[in-house]
Amino acid sequence: MTNTPARGSARLMAPMFGSTATLAIFDDTSTVRRMLDVEAALARAEASCGVIPEEAAAVISAVCADPSVIDLDALAQSAVAAGNLAIPFVKQLTAAVAQRDGHAARFVHWGATSQDIIDTALVLQLGDALRAIDADLVGLGQCVAALAARHHATPMVARTWLQHALPTTFGLKAAGWLDALRRDLARVDAARTQVRTLQFGGAAGTLASLGAAAQAVSIAFADQLDLQLPALPWHTHRDRLVEVATTLGMLTGTLGKMARDISLMMQTEIAEVAEPSGPGRGGSSTMPHKRNPVGCAAVLTASLRVPPLVATMLAGMVQEHERALGGWQAEWETLPQIVTLAAGALAQMREVAGGLQVDAARMRANLDITHGLILGEAAMLELGGRIGRLPAHHLVEAASKRAVAEGTSLRDALQSTLQAETEHAGLLDEATLDRLADPANYAGESSRYTDAAVQAWQLALAARPSH
Amino acid sequence: MTNTPARGSARLMAPMFGSTATLAIFDDTSTVRRMLDVEAALARAEASCGVIPEEAAAVISAVCADPSVIDLDALAQSAVAAGNLAIPFVKQLTAAVAQRDGHAARFVHWGATSQDIIDTALVLQLGDALRAIDADLVGLGQCVAALAARHHATPMVARTWLQHALPTTFGLKAAGWLDALRRDLARVDAARTQVRTLQFGGAAGTLASLGAAAQAVSIAFADQLDLQLPALPWHTHRDRLVEVATTLGMLTGTLGKMARDISLMMQTEIAEVAEPSGPGRGGSSTMPHKRNPVGCAAVLTASLRVPPLVATMLAGMVQEHERALGGWQAEWETLPQIVTLAAGALAQMREVAGGLQVDAARMRANLDITHGLILGEAAMLELGGRIGRLPAHHLVEAASKRAVAEGTSLRDALQSTLQAETEHAGLLDEATLDRLADPANYAGESSRYTDAAVQAWQLALAARPSH
Amino acid sequence: MTNTPARGSARLMAPMFGSTATLAIFDDTSTVRRMLDVEAALARAEASCGVIPEEAAAVISAVCADPSVIDLDALAQSAVAAGNLAIPFVKQLTAAVAQRDGHAARFVHWGATSQDIIDTALVLQLGDALRAIDADLVGLGQCVAALAARHHATPMVARTWLQHALPTTFGLKAAGWLDALRRDLARVDAARTQVRTLQFGGAAGTLASLGAAAQAVSIAFADQLDLQLPALPWHTHRDRLVEVATTLGMLTGTLGKMARDISLMMQTEIAEVAEPSGPGRGGSSTMPHKRNPVGCAAVLTASLRVPPLVATMLAGMVQEHERALGGWQAEWETLPQIVTLAAGALAQMREVAGGLQVDAARMRANLDITHGLILGEAAMLELGGRIGRLPAHHLVEAASKRAVAEGTSLRDALQSTLQAETEHAGLLDEATLDRLADPANYAGESSRYTDAAVQAWQLALAARPSH
Amino acid sequence: MTNTPARGSARLMAPMFGSTATLAIFDDTSTVRRMLDVEAALARAEASCGVIPEEAAAVISAVCADPSVIDLDALAQSAVAAGNLAIPFVKQLTAAVAQRDGHAARFVHWGATSQDIIDTALVLQLGDALRAIDADLVGLGQCVAALAARHHATPMVARTWLQHALPTTFGLKAAGWLDALRRDLARVDAARTQVRTLQFGGAAGTLASLGAAAQAVSIAFADQLDLQLPALPWHTHRDRLVEVATTLGMLTGTLGKMARDISLMMQTEIAEVAEPSGPGRGGSSTMPHKRNPVGCAAVLTASLRVPPLVATMLAGMVQEHERALGGWQAEWETLPQIVTLAAGALAQMREVAGGLQVDAARMRANLDITHGLILGEAAMLELGGRIGRLPAHHLVEAASKRAVAEGTSLRDALQSTLQAETEHAGLLDEATLDRLADPANYAGESSRYTDAAVQAWQLALAARPSH
Repeated sequence: MTNTPARGSARLMAPMFGSTATLAIFDDTSTVRRMLDVEAALARAEASCGVIPEEAAAVISAVCADPSVIDLDALAQSAVAAGNLAIPFVKQLTAAVAQRDGHAARFVHWGATSQDIIDTALVLQLGDALRAIDADLVGLGQCVAALAARHHATPMVARTWLQHALPTTFGLKAAGWLDALRRDLARVDAARTQVRTLQFGGAAGTLASLGAAAQAVSIAFADQLDLQLPALPWHTHRDRLVEVATTLGMLTGTLGKMARDISLMMQTEIAEVAEPSGPGRGGSSTMPHKRNPVGCAAVLTASLRVPPLVATMLAGMVQEHERALGGWQAEWETLPQIVTLAAGALAQMREVAGGLQVDAARMRANLDITHGLILGEAAMLELGGRIGRLPAHHLVEAASKRAVAEGTSLRDALQSTLQAETEHAGLLDEATLDRLADPANYAGESSRYTDAAVQAWQLALAARPSH
Repeated sequence: MTNTPARGSARLMAPMFGSTATLAIFDDTSTVRRMLDVEAALARAEASCGVIPEEAAAVISAVCADPSVIDLDALAQSAVAAGNLAIPFVKQLTAAVAQRDGHAARFVHWGATSQDIIDTALVLQLGDALRAIDADLVGLGQCVAALAARHHATPMVARTWLQHALPTTFGLKAAGWLDALRRDLARVDAARTQVRTLQFGGAAGTLASLGAAAQAVSIAFADQLDLQLPALPWHTHRDRLVEVATTLGMLTGTLGKMARDISLMMQTEIAEVAEPSGPGRGGSSTMPHKRNPVGCAAVLTASLRVPPLVATMLAGMVQEHERALGGWQAEWETLPQIVTLAAGALAQMREVAGGLQVDAARMRANLDITHGLILGEAAMLELGGRIGRLPAHHLVEAASKRAVAEGTSLRDALQSTLQAETEHAGLLDEATLDRLADPANYAGESSRYTDAAVQAWQLALAARPSH
Repeated sequence: MTNTPARGSARLMAPMFGSTATLAIFDDTSTVRRMLDVEAALARAEASCGVIPEEAAAVISAVCADPSVIDLDALAQSAVAAGNLAIPFVKQLTAAVAQRDGHAARFVHWGATSQDIIDTALVLQLGDALRAIDADLVGLGQCVAALAARHHATPMVARTWLQHALPTTFGLKAAGWLDALRRDLARVDAARTQVRTLQFGGAAGTLASLGAAAQAVSIAFADQLDLQLPALPWHTHRDRLVEVATTLGMLTGTLGKMARDISLMMQTEIAEVAEPSGPGRGGSSTMPHKRNPVGCAAVLTASLRVPPLVATMLAGMVQEHERALGGWQAEWETLPQIVTLAAGALAQMREVAGGLQVDAARMRANLDITHGLILGEAAMLELGGRIGRLPAHHLVEAASKRAVAEGTSLRDALQSTLQAETEHAGLLDEATLDRLADPANYAGESSRYTDAAVQAWQLALAARPSH
Repeated sequence: MTNTPARGSARLMAPMFGSTATLAIFDDTSTVRRMLDVEAALARAEASCGVIPEEAAAVISAVCADPSVIDLDALAQSAVAAGNLAIPFVKQLTAAVAQRDGHAARFVHWGATSQDIIDTALVLQLGDALRAIDADLVGLGQCVAALAARHHATPMVARTWLQHALPTTFGLKAAGWLDALRRDLARVDAARTQVRTLQFGGAAGTLASLGAAAQAVSIAFADQLDLQLPALPWHTHRDRLVEVATTLGMLTGTLGKMARDISLMMQTEIAEVAEPSGPGRGGSSTMPHKRNPVGCAAVLTASLRVPPLVATMLAGMVQEHERALGGWQAEWETLPQIVTLAAGALAQMREVAGGLQVDAARMRANLDITHGLILGEAAMLELGGRIGRLPAHHLVEAASKRAVAEGTSLRDALQSTLQAETEHAGLLDEATLDRLADPANYAGESSRYTDAAVQAWQLALAARPSH
């Protein structure tokens, strides 16, 4: 209620880097709500197995339905001495239940340990977040598939080492993005499936506290929450959570590659694409020529921040015995950060790709900056087929040097070079030279690759279970 | 031949941290050998499609069979200006082929780009390395499964926050390791399958250099090397490689958790397990009481080093256009380091687990250090069933305080406490007290969990294709 | 006012990991307050140089004194499209000034760029935070210096590879911590001095917007905020900020080492020290034997989380041209996290060290666990001085084996071994054997080292300017 | 002599990423040579204090002068079981000394522990490496200072968000690099001074093995090696080493920023600078238009790889008791990698900057790409001074829109706009419009900043002690 500065942290920037959906899933109220869901499910499961009274479970369940029973500020402060959220959370919850029914309060959190609640609540949050990410990923893929299909044959220059190399198509560039997104989608699906696993082991991971009812309660508990029941509790084995982190790390990498490409193509001197514009978006009243790539910047930010956070998750796997000293606690803020950063980058890229302005004419114009030098390979292949590879290489090399020296096009320089050597004069007629000078004629497999990637994407979508 | 200091780096320490098999797969000679394999396969594929002469392919293939055609020192030095290994490698190879057959030399590396060779050679090395890792992982799992089965009912203390908590069994601890290894094995299998993918796109990823033959050559090329053919070249989409890194990062995390547990249990004061001994292994002639956990130290080293290297791989995914400036190059030494570190940690842990000396008596003795205080929960449950949870809680709390104050066992303190309160005197008879005082009677689901994990492991092995 | 889930993030856990002081410095309100301070100082500086009217500066300054003029939720939401906080912040501020004085509103943010405000506000926050950290660091050092002095001669076992090695003193262990803290203190001082540097360059870092007044305004601006004026704006050169990060990374490492040592010493089986107890602190009503090292856990958490965050700062240094695309933005949440994590770890360790319960008797008892085997080196040196090193080595080795085999002390085994070899019988009399058997007599330079470290600490404090 | 695959690792790529000098300092032979230097210095120090015989020291010293006494392959293999290099190294050394003088062999490594030798040898290597880095850093700085001075007034466009912003000068860009290099130089100096510190504590850090001679030997030992003597041994306090890592991490960040700028300016479409050319350097015979930024690529590679390695060093600081289990060992390959990567990046950037081809005409031409729109701020200030800021803003905004719509320059559009509004017709005469249209007239403080940075660099060099 009151302003508690000690609980504040950089929330101002959260919307810049996180998606609305995932920020809501991991905000404080939602975290507590999920912990309450877990306690309620535990109580119902135990009642269904006769471990606690049905009436107690009903009261607990009812109290847990209202997150306002938990005082967030007090919870945050008490957690400092307790070492985790669940200990003061259970105290507050027990008190709230006791206000309604003293007897029922005795059965709150029965047989469970703090980590059971914290981990299972997290698993529920991750399930929700990965579903939201899945949806945005499908949405982004559809935008990119449309770009690839539409620009299937739009010529542009391929750049290696940030230098013009050979012709390609914008469709192929988009197809490369798309095929990576398809693999990311499969990984997100897999990570979501495996992470939805109940944590329930009691204080030492043996569930001794539940005696003979342990297995039955575990089954009912998992059932209540629609989670898988693992072979055994996994308090200090965190690979399922880490796989969520690595999966989102790879997704962020794919998005970062897209953002790098797009922001480079948006440079003032290149101007082949532009992020969508909008009120207050990336513009400047005093610099009307500017269209800042704010979406790409947010994605590139995520692609710098997420990898080290994934390293934290991996390093945290080295956990001591049956409850860790540092490794577990290091996950608490790190994994939600990874999820929100990845989801935020995804949402930003979906907006960027969905409204991407593509200037095919400028792509075509940029192909000519080197006056056809990028078509040397094409010329060499053509000539090689007629006079052998080595003489062809020498001719094209000479023509290239001439083009650079004289400031003419490779086409004209090649024509002059051929004419200068009587044996080759007229070897290539005007039509052939024109054909060679058109970059669109040297795009190789671009179209086929693009079609293959689009088709693979559509097949992957079609094969998904409806969920 | 000569000493080339500029090529040296910390090879002295390589065997400490890498496995023999993977170090050999990634040593300089093997790297060059795999690049030669790729060039040979390319030539054969192209000949089979009529793109280059069969005779040329035969000569190229023959020359590629002998790695000594490449001068490693010269290669290393030339790579500095070239920016990658493949450019000077192709020059050396072409010269070597030309020495045998000048005509054939024209067809070396036909239509390919440097990255095609480097990436495909890497993919072959990774396939080999992951197969070796798979074998060691199965071997380690079998050791751990045997430990779990053998110590299915060996009582030991569960430790949370590095403090005694409740009883558990050593079998359950081993079962936790085993279940994680089972998941790691599945991930390694999956990563190996997906990474075995041909890289072949020519200078700009369009294979324009091969004209109409591009698709046929690609199919034949992949076939020659027994690799998958992707929908399109993946020069700047690196997720398949990164998944190898993240998979091995998770494996290293599992191994690190085992090493942390084992090294903590080996502490002089705890002495529940010991690494196998051997000549020159972890001993000290002047300190005969010492048995240094050298295997665990190597594993823990890997678990510190690998996560940041995985972050490098993830960060490197942000690659520019059709060939990266930094992101690709950052992989070259990093991914082999990840593989050799993970494989080395695995080999070390296999040796540790295979020869682990388990002192069940000491485990049992350590359970008694707190004079039964760790059995308070058991007592509380027993009493709770008779007099209700709250009174039971108070009784046990009082008894615990008495035990600490008087330096007696909880069993005796509980007996005294009960006797002091006339209403409860005689509530628990001697036999019941003795039963409660035996930690073996409060191990909960330990055995069932252990059996489940061992069975899951065996099923996973049985379900594997023979490979 | 309203609940804005999209702005929420894991604030619940902030107090567990951050210090109260630094959380307050970096909370949303304080961030905005510091941005207002910067705008006010800019206006006053410009007025003092005649660039804007004095009256305008007065109004701007007055409005900036009240942080409630900024609507935080609106700010957070507008920042998404703008790409940073300063753009919507300046809009809100201008509107607020305009409400009071339309003319003054024209001079808000005059000549400055967004990054000038954001960076300079950050520099002010960092200055405050490093001052708070400095104070806690001095406080922690004093606690540790007192521990070192008090336990100057308290014998305990030195452990290498987590195995008993030789005797040492607890004072020396504390002195090792102290000497590291002394170096950290010097680094924090240096980092604070260099980071307090004005950022002021205008849209392109040339301050062209201020024409001839640029230098004068810069001097006055720095003077207003008591900051240094750099040789030139540093929009894309971030090393001063990164040095704050690396400095705090090293501090966190020192704290983590202390926490690792303390938590290991707190293990139930070792029990040489304990964290201070308190209500709700690390205890368990059902497990009265437990004293969870919650302070150490928080510190170890920080020491896992901070290093990768430092890597983010370092990686973010690769910034494009005159304003970065990702590298700058990656700092915004990362650097405050580093500061609050380090400060939180420091505060926790100050509490732990300030109330550390040291059990010297248990330290002494643990020295005997190996029955004197750890004194083999002492015996060898004593004998070596009498009969030569090699015979001495053989005798002690034989005695050690005998001690292990017979379960006796090394002292007795040595006596028996000497007696068994007639030439050495009586070589060491009872008094000598007793002296050798006392670990306190083999602590080497422990005391001298401890005194040296304490003295160096005190000298370092004495040499500090009062600030 | 024989092929030892298990010792091999990616040496082929070492020269691409490391500097010749530092690779030589850290190669296997040099590592062993430095360990021999340390043993020799120890023997001489102990002899000078009467702890071991002078003759023994003479023999040890003589044997240590020849690194071939150590069999590197055997050393590498034995280290696996021993857990570090020093144990088998001392065995080999002792055997070699024994071959000459059995008596002297008894005094090899007297009183020292493995870590004393390994750490002190490392400290010597780091001292050498940092001296080499210092020299290259001065060399690079001189190149950059010359660039800054020469292009003091060379106009170019400032780019923010990869978009044209306002004019600046190439001199100012270089000055920004230079000022960062100056700070890096100071940090390298400081890190070198503090890291040159002896490690000498014996098995437990107490030097008990040397009895009363401990202090005298320590002083003599440090003196022999020209190292500082610390207040106490620092076996598990690694901040001095970590500071080398963070210092080089920041240097690599500065270099990465330069490489990012240069590689962006080298893009085919921008072409403002080019890396020096040379035989085999970054060229392509079939793509004569290409000039690959191979130097920048190597630097950017380092700037991706070094930050996570710094994180490893920071994370490794959490070391157990008196000898670590993982944290120490994680440094062994990591710190040399950081040093060689940073030194390699530095050497590459020195070559790039030393031969950088600057195309001032192209810089000037690129300024005009937006037809003067980047000068809107200049026009606004000029007009604002005459008619007030708000009307000026409106006029320039209108002119900018007109320029974009009509495809004319801002100068002409502004002229037309003014003429269209009768009240402002003729407000700016032709000469004023021409002045405003020249970006060189809107470079603000560029020159002054550049001069200040060059001067600060020269002062810093002048203030250095000659070393």
